[in-house]
Amino acid sequence: MASCGALKGTFLVSPLAQDGYSSCSSVRNRSTNATRQSSNRKFTGIMAVLNDKASNEIVRVNGANGSFAISVRYSGEKPATPILDTINYPISMKSLSVEELENLAEELREEIVYRVSETGGHLSSNLGVAELTVALHHVFNTPSDKIIWDVGHQSYPHKILTGRRSRMGTMRQTSGLAGFPKRDESEHDAFGAGHSSTSISAGLGMAVGRDLLGKDNHVISVIGDGAMTAGQAYEAMNNAGYLDSNLIIILNDNRQVSLPTATLDGPAPPVGALSRSLTRLQTSRKFRQLREAAKEVTKKLGDKTHEVAAKMDSYMRGLMGGNTACMFEDLGLYYVGPVDGHNVEDLVYVLDSIKSTPDAGPVLVHVVTEKGKGYPPAEIAADKMHGVVKFNTQSGKQLKTKTNTLSYTQYFANSLVAEAERDDKIVAIHAAMGGGTGLNTFQKRFPKRCFDVGIAEQHAVTFAAGLATEGLKPFVAIYSSFLQRGYDQVVHDVDLQKLPVRFALDRAGLVGADGPTHCGAFDTTFMACLPNMVVMAPSNESELMNMVATAAAIDDRPSCFRFPRGNGVGSFIPPNNKGTPIEVGKGKVLKEGSRVALLGYGTIVQSCLAASELLQAHGISVTVANARFCKPLDGNLIKKLANEHEVLVTLEEGSIGGFSSHVSHFLASNGLLDGNLKWRAMTLPDRYIEHGAQPNQIEEAGLTPKHIAATVLSLVGKTNDGLHLLNF
Amino acid sequence: MASCGALKGTFLVSPLAQDGYSSCSSVRNRSTNATRQSSNRKFTGIMAVLNDKASNEIVRVNGANGSFAISVRYSGEKPATPILDTINYPISMKSLSVEELENLAEELREEIVYRVSETGGHLSSNLGVAELTVALHHVFNTPSDKIIWDVGHQSYPHKILTGRRSRMGTMRQTSGLAGFPKRDESEHDAFGAGHSSTSISAGLGMAVGRDLLGKDNHVISVIGDGAMTAGQAYEAMNNAGYLDSNLIIILNDNRQVSLPTATLDGPAPPVGALSRSLTRLQTSRKFRQLREAAKEVTKKLGDKTHEVAAKMDSYMRGLMGGNTACMFEDLGLYYVGPVDGHNVEDLVYVLDSIKSTPDAGPVLVHVVTEKGKGYPPAEIAADKMHGVVKFNTQSGKQLKTKTNTLSYTQYFANSLVAEAERDDKIVAIHAAMGGGTGLNTFQKRFPKRCFDVGIAEQHAVTFAAGLATEGLKPFVAIYSSFLQRGYDQVVHDVDLQKLPVRFALDRAGLVGADGPTHCGAFDTTFMACLPNMVVMAPSNESELMNMVATAAAIDDRPSCFRFPRGNGVGSFIPPNNKGTPIEVGKGKVLKEGSRVALLGYGTIVQSCLAASELLQAHGISVTVANARFCKPLDGNLIKKLANEHEVLVTLEEGSIGGFSSHVSHFLASNGLLDGNLKWRAMTLPDRYIEHGAQPNQIEEAGLTPKHIAATVLSLVGKTNDGLHLLNF
Repeated sequence: MASCGALKGTFLVSPLAQDGYSSCSSVRNRSTNATRQSSNRKFTGIMAVLNDKASNEIVRVNGANGSFAISVRYSGEKPATPILDTINYPISMKSLSVEELENLAEELREEIVYRVSETGGHLSSNLGVAELTVALHHVFNTPSDKIIWDVGHQSYPHKILTGRRSRMGTMRQTSGLAGFPKRDESEHDAFGAGHSSTSISAGLGMAVGRDLLGKDNHVISVIGDGAMTAGQAYEAMNNAGYLDSNLIIILNDNRQVSLPTATLDGPAPPVGALSRSLTRLQTSRKFRQLREAAKEVTKKLGDKTHEVAAKMDSYMRGLMGGNTACMFEDLGLYYVGPVDGHNVEDLVYVLDSIKSTPDAGPVLVHVVTEKGKGYPPAEIAADKMHGVVKFNTQSGKQLKTKTNTLSYTQYFANSLVAEAERDDKIVAIHAAMGGGTGLNTFQKRFPKRCFDVGIAEQHAVTFAAGLATEGLKPFVAIYSSFLQRGYDQVVHDVDLQKLPVRFALDRAGLVGADGPTHCGAFDTTFMACLPNMVVMAPSNESELMNMVATAAAIDDRPSCFRFPRGNGVGSFIPPNNKGTPIEVGKGKVLKEGSRVALLGYGTIVQSCLAASELLQAHGISVTVANARFCKPLDGNLIKKLANEHEVLVTLEEGSIGGFSSHVSHFLASNGLLDGNLKWRAMTLPDRYIEHGAQPNQIEEAGLTPKHIAATVLSLVGKTNDGLHLLNF
Repeated sequence: MASCGALKGTFLVSPLAQDGYSSCSSVRNRSTNATRQSSNRKFTGIMAVLNDKASNEIVRVNGANGSFAISVRYSGEKPATPILDTINYPISMKSLSVEELENLAEELREEIVYRVSETGGHLSSNLGVAELTVALHHVFNTPSDKIIWDVGHQSYPHKILTGRRSRMGTMRQTSGLAGFPKRDESEHDAFGAGHSSTSISAGLGMAVGRDLLGKDNHVISVIGDGAMTAGQAYEAMNNAGYLDSNLIIILNDNRQVSLPTATLDGPAPPVGALSRSLTRLQTSRKFRQLREAAKEVTKKLGDKTHEVAAKMDSYMRGLMGGNTACMFEDLGLYYVGPVDGHNVEDLVYVLDSIKSTPDAGPVLVHVVTEKGKGYPPAEIAADKMHGVVKFNTQSGKQLKTKTNTLSYTQYFANSLVAEAERDDKIVAIHAAMGGGTGLNTFQKRFPKRCFDVGIAEQHAVTFAAGLATEGLKPFVAIYSSFLQRGYDQVVHDVDLQKLPVRFALDRAGLVGADGPTHCGAFDTTFMACLPNMVVMAPSNESELMNMVATAAAIDDRPSCFRFPRGNGVGSFIPPNNKGTPIEVGKGKVLKEGSRVALLGYGTIVQSCLAASELLQAHGISVTVANARFCKPLDGNLIKKLANEHEVLVTLEEGSIGGFSSHVSHFLASNGLLDGNLKWRAMTLPDRYIEHGAQPNQIEEAGLTPKHIAATVLSLVGKTNDGLHLLNF
């Protein structure tokens, strides 16, 4: 009995007699719920096979052997892909043998390394799901069966297998393939993605819809790469367990919880307690020992009677699943796993079994994969080569272009560190984006003052609110489009309570290759309508650093500042990166003119300056002002511009409802529109702009200096000059 | 062994020999994590005491005895409260005996019934936490210790005990106490609430802040009433388990998952699989049997050695917690419970023990309470008298005022049922608000086509998107302010993919007694900036029903319509409640005038009509137009109004950035502001408006017919007339 207490494990009777546990006997608590008990028996066969097959495979994932054999494949030449060449659509994969499927997965991997080395994009998540994708498309029949790729950056093998191989060279480029699944792009893309953790909700909707319509297709949600830390995944699992529809959830467990989105930083350990539970399943000595023992039991017991099978099922589930299986089961899912995600045979067997089980209900298949699998430079890279630019396939070395300035992200991080050096109340929070937000820099300098909360923007915001109540000065760094995920918390927990949380909104405006899912179009609109929020945007990196100082100084209310993807313009960097606070609500005239005023908000001010040069050539005298604040507005500046000019154009790289709208209300309520002032707003257009090069997107949005100048020309009666400017 | 397989429970060795399980022996799987093992021992004493004391208490909660003894207390007279009369602040509670604390809880309960019967407000959640609140304030020391009440509608006993008893008669009234915790109101209100599931995030922030500042206070998050179904709670638990700060989470498990917010409907069974797991803990025969058995074991084993204590701990935890304990432990929390939440002695003992445990880490105390406890009319009511108007304390009968019209909510529900009668693709989704959204009506008619997903707005939206991909026609009914919780999903999963999900935004604009947390101020702003969304608002209930028909007909893009809290104006109700689709983007002139145009969006159109009457008395000819659509705008209508009038006022009960902003951009880009048109926007002011009567709030917002008329008078040079109108 004492040994039982010490073990704290789950195990079976005398056949397992070892390690002194021979007197202990139990199956794991499997609840008293009748429905669950009956479902226990469904997948008995699966578990037995996993038992026989999988244990060494997973160990091999981390093993050293194989690396050399793999690496010689990546010569930089276009790889030979004899099987892949025969596959245009999944229908061609149905008759392949397991061995052919295994080879197909290898060819896919080589193809992806070759393609991504030429285009850049997401790499390692795609390498991790080569076998899984092959198995899924072998077993299921898209588009009638629905596969939903969570986050979607792991969909390249899926795209290659579903008619888009020839266009892989256009990936993420203007008019090319999107980097994420996209319903418009293929009927095999059941649901678009880009933000994480939506796949179970969408899948459940499709499953319920199928049932209502009396159809019988399968729905498979593939979730991983940290997406399980987001609350939406939990909400959806809980609801799936309740509704009990047939839905297959693949937990692609690649031990990533925080996405390593920067290449310069060391690996981030997974955050969140759940990740510990998952890791424990795969790494504990006891787990492996017990698994080996289980094989013996299976042999001795055989698999003949239903009763024995049911017991084995419970046993294996308790054994392999540990507590984590139990958590998923509490949420009403049937847990199967862990399955070696690089073993095609096991994957096909498991998926086939589930597919052929009638009324399986919601099943969660825990698949263990390695991010970057099979490509040694990715396997050993700190960030697993998650997102890359073009690279040399033999070395994995990325061909980064040299720039004279750093990214806005890095200037933000550097100046936040500088503030934090002087004020120990400053803390930083991000949602699994230490690399993307630059906060890994902060983390290195102040490890105890930096919090990676996982993909959990809602929690990040309220957590920061809690910190603020204690008198700390939290900076929450979240991409503009991802803050949408924490909007209610911004309103209800921060702004309504007037708590001084600072929001650093990176990737504001158009973002290039990631496309509309990541476009930061709406933040000014949804933040500036909040009564207590200070809303700012810098015109260059120097001002960004000053705004970090401003936000640090604003301690009686919340504030936010937005800045774009891309590099600084070469403006003056303050000594030691320490910015100087700007007077709140104060804009600045950058260039004095007489006839036309351009009032820019954010880095579009640079384009206003360029436009003013173009207009000068047409003899038009232009004032350029940098608004800096959307809230509070600089009323004196706006009055001056309105009163002293014939035309006032407000400009921003954001949607309607933001800066320009606030200016229009100010103008109207002060009677400044009652006379003959011509006011115009230049904003992002009222449509989504597809992925592509940032300059192309800005052209498409009509926000280049030429567009600005042409707009002004048409307003001063020189429409033809404007058209000429645009067309030549 | 066969019996082990059949049992699927967790139990201990031979001393428990009964029910044929004598050969089975194990403690529950407690993981191999070293940290967890050491923490196992911390609360051994607590579990033993629970074992001795609690089991009958919980059973008694649902027992019939006691009802009579309790009911005679509610005579309608002001109750005698000898102990409560001595308590102004928690400091006075420290020296009370357990018996006195028990009596105090009873007095609190009587006081609350008496007070709420006079003011209306939330009732049963407050009755459920009388003992818990007393125990918390006896053991902990607010304001240095922080108690965070999730959702906050259960904070009345807390308010009474923290210096606000004398103001309880002003609850939820203009200038009175708020119905939720509010930081401005008391230093004992550590964090404001109104929306659910934020308390763990906020508490974790406070705990981490405390640690960074080297303080040693306690932080207690009290979460329940369904709030565990929201993803944010999960995100926060996962992060709490990872950070391992000392944080006490009280899971106030009153078996409510969906809030019964309507009084006319039957009880909703809890949704979500987790609720089944929690319920199972308390209701299974096996649970109670094992618990009894455990008592015997404790007696035999004693509590002398550390080893035995640790074993007992593990045992009791496995026994009482079942799978659900395990789920919380997977998230890294130490689970204690279930504790009878109406047993003051147990509560005090458990809380005291946790308080005195150094480095306890994050602890979850599972407290079982009964909503409405002790007040028989609430206990037996279908909705537990969750939210009530004034009522008779003896009968529990609410004194509802008779109205000639139904609520907008009910007109919405009736017309949706009418649409669904004719189109079996129509389905309805709500987030634990079947009563509040009126969808209980739909549920009754179409039980298989109505989905209550729990407090999970994120999932609700993407789930609907999934349904839409299958060709179903989902209507998602969510309060305006709660849709903020699902905003990213509206953008990323619905609008970007142009999926025809219909959003019914109830409680748009000012909402009265619930105050700013529930105010629907921002929806038009954050919805109308989305490129594909059709955005509408009806001017009366008839038009609401037509807009339901319109939304049903719009099947190529998403749409939304907003409507207010309160009753219809008596407009024509279509036969069989079946509305007629309105031409998309088409407004309507309601009254022709010449000098001034009022263009209203939503039910404020009624105030425009009233204002036009006032203005007529001043000789001003007013056109009143009903915009109906914010997106797409009725460009022809706006051009006509702008061209044919001297003044154009746009009006909405919403924030800046919404309808008025869209009109201003349209006016500007069409050159309609270049001349002498005076355009003004009347919106909600740029501040939060406190709780109170809706008419008071509209007055405070400056949006009454008098305000509208006064604004117009000042614009036509009759400022004095306007001031006179406002002041007399």
